[in-house]
Amino acid sequence: MDLRALDLLSRPIVGQLSYLGLDGHPRVVPVWFEHRDGQVLVPSAPGTYKGRCLRADGRASLAVSTERWPYHLVTVRGEVAVEVLPEAARIELVGGLARRYLGEQIAARYLETWSQGGHPGDGDLLRLRPSSVRFVDISGGS
Amino acid sequence: MDLRALDLLSRPIVGQLSYLGLDGHPRVVPVWFEHRDGQVLVPSAPGTYKGRCLRADGRASLAVSTERWPYHLVTVRGEVAVEVLPEAARIELVGGLARRYLGEQIAARYLETWSQGGHPGDGDLLRLRPSSVRFVDISGGS
Repeated sequence: MDLRALDLLSRPIVGQLSYLGLDGHPRVVPVWFEHRDGQVLVPSAPGTYKGRCLRADGRASLAVSTERWPYHLVTVRGEVAVEVLPEAARIELVGGLARRYLGEQIAARYLETWSQGGHPGDGDLLRLRPSSVRFVDISGGS
Repeated sequence: MDLRALDLLSRPIVGQLSYLGLDGHPRVVPVWFEHRDGQVLVPSAPGTYKGRCLRADGRASLAVSTERWPYHLVTVRGEVAVEVLPEAARIELVGGLARRYLGEQIAARYLETWSQGGHPGDGDLLRLRPSSVRFVDISGGS
């Protein structure tokens, strides 16, 4: 993989996950993700709309881009498998992501609410297996 | 429209435009946009891949979200019409967007390159007509 793509995927930038709605209409939602072993892992609460959609049709794309000029963009295309994310693994994954995206202090508060007394229960794992990863240095989309 | 949605759409946050690739695979790309008279206007160079895709199937969504906690999100769903954007209107729209997103100083440099000596030529206008606009106060997508 392009090292610039690898670098961008390792930074705490919210990803933009695109998928097909149950009616076939394209949708996009911001997500926390972890890029691990060449796959993109997105934890999700169980039973969300995006989880149901991706179970029905796994085709998806993830865009990760810098917020300021000059804009750098990574686009990951592939197929999502929706798996059960057992509570212990969920706590570990969401805990790591919360600290990465929010910093220790806000993460602690976030996780206190999120974990519901230490027992958030099982969740969904959206596992995106890339068929292509592209890095682009864009200049504004105009 | 929800005033919180209106406010978020008026801020200089890069939008995330989701559409269907020519192969039907969902895609997402960051775009500069202007929310004007209830529509979302996205200028584009002529002949881009996203323009060709949206001519073939106009179904699209746009997500605009804050970059930091607490995350606020606006999702716009609708249909995109791809129109010719005549040079003069293109210069005005892209000029305004460049200043909005980049600030005066960087915009001046950007536009100098972009305008190719004052004659960038006609472009495409992606005009998104919303069928729904939703504001969500999200807490991390986990």
